[in-house]
Amino acid sequence: MTDPWQECMDHCVEVTKQAGKMIREALQKDISIMQKSSPVDLVTETDQKVEQLIIHTGTVPHHYFIGEESVAAGAPSILSDNPTWIIDPIDGTTNFVHRFPFVSVSIGFTVKKEIEFGIVYSCIEDKMYTARKGKGAFCNGVPIKVSGQEDITKSLVLTEMGFKKDPEHFKIMMGNINTILAIPVHGIRSPGSAAVNMCLVACGGADAYYHMGIHCWDMAGGAAIITEAGGVIMDISGGPFDLMSRRLIIASSRAIAERIAKEITVFPCGRDDTEG
Amino acid sequence: MTDPWQECMDHCVEVTKQAGKMIREALQKDISIMQKSSPVDLVTETDQKVEQLIIHTGTVPHHYFIGEESVAAGAPSILSDNPTWIIDPIDGTTNFVHRFPFVSVSIGFTVKKEIEFGIVYSCIEDKMYTARKGKGAFCNGVPIKVSGQEDITKSLVLTEMGFKKDPEHFKIMMGNINTILAIPVHGIRSPGSAAVNMCLVACGGADAYYHMGIHCWDMAGGAAIITEAGGVIMDISGGPFDLMSRRLIIASSRAIAERIAKEITVFPCGRDDTEG
Repeated sequence: MTDPWQECMDHCVEVTKQAGKMIREALQKDISIMQKSSPVDLVTETDQKVEQLIIHTGTVPHHYFIGEESVAAGAPSILSDNPTWIIDPIDGTTNFVHRFPFVSVSIGFTVKKEIEFGIVYSCIEDKMYTARKGKGAFCNGVPIKVSGQEDITKSLVLTEMGFKKDPEHFKIMMGNINTILAIPVHGIRSPGSAAVNMCLVACGGADAYYHMGIHCWDMAGGAAIITEAGGVIMDISGGPFDLMSRRLIIASSRAIAERIAKEITVFPCGRDDTEG
Repeated sequence: MTDPWQECMDHCVEVTKQAGKMIREALQKDISIMQKSSPVDLVTETDQKVEQLIIHTGTVPHHYFIGEESVAAGAPSILSDNPTWIIDPIDGTTNFVHRFPFVSVSIGFTVKKEIEFGIVYSCIEDKMYTARKGKGAFCNGVPIKVSGQEDITKSLVLTEMGFKKDPEHFKIMMGNINTILAIPVHGIRSPGSAAVNMCLVACGGADAYYHMGIHCWDMAGGAAIITEAGGVIMDISGGPFDLMSRRLIIASSRAIAERIAKEITVFPCGRDDTEG
């Protein structure tokens, strides 16, 4: 039987390449323009252009889209059984503004709420990560797999830290970093792009990544890639991963993921499908 | 008048390229071998091989060397007026073990205790950063400069966090991250290689970097690069930068560097020229 979604995936890779090119071109603009005016404007403009490119060139009857920019503009963020493209046009927007080298386009494609394929294009590095359910994960066409590390004391852990207006959440975020470092682990790295973080674990460049407060469009592409690379993905509480829950742990092994789930203090971060 | 050190610098770039190739080859080894045996052995072996390559192919009469591995083996770490190569054969050893993509070879060259040139080769990214005193900074031959950002609330800050056995130092390190995030800044990133961090600020990919507890071989190459890229380098206390002090702040502007100096709590981390 022909794979019903392979053609859709091939098309998605092509569109993602074009989107990445558009992002690289935006980064060519004079840095002084970016900094004198509002960098937020440049982000918004590029974000919207990239998302529209993906949605318009990806249009197939009966396909749905959940995109960061569309949701910001008021579109619903409800995952249905319909074939759905979940799009982050620029994952790592702060990196984008600063030209820090991890910026990606992330697309996950779901049918009946299951992720069928995921694409993450780290467009400054020019690394195209792809995964089709049951068919493995790849970086620029070369198969990738997780490190297989099972000992958390030998692991390199990724997470992100940012200022949080709620002092209690800020305290919990910093406390979690403290707790993980003191296990101890080999180190914590913060590259600044959720989708790239997931791919770094998928190709064995790090052993785990956890985060609270991200969105389905940050996770959908990477979720396919980490799973197909032999990794583990779960909820921050240790339960099953929920794409709309705004939180996740991924790791090279169940042992490491479960240990992180045990150590982490959770703060409420809402759901993608009940907000707005 | 001919530049007395240009030939030496050209030679250094060539040796650094060879060293980077050696590191990439070491990373080709099967990851399972690295993880089953002790990754520390692989690091030590590669570190020593790279440092010996640099020292032996760099040998010039009356030149001195301060190298991480030589110092570990008992060689003195005293900066004299003699022409001196200050070498970190693998900057980012934890990244190296995990194949996290920021691993570099860093060389600074001093005469009369002044840095004459600096080379940092980020060898997985294949980015060769070079700077000759008074002649600008370059990445793969293209001139680079800092972002010029003066407003810390619009800045992206780099620092590293690791487990520290001394609970007091650990608490200060985490407290400093907390303080910087709460200014607030756009974000903190932790790439895991001091030399690469310095180059990321030098090319405008981030706006500041601070660190306590690193060594002269982590800083010497990058110090030339950040200075020639128009950046600011100072001691963590806000005073003049001291290559042997094991601490630094670099930034895109004096305003940002001074603000970080004001916010940071210092813990004692010794000196390179009084230890061992």
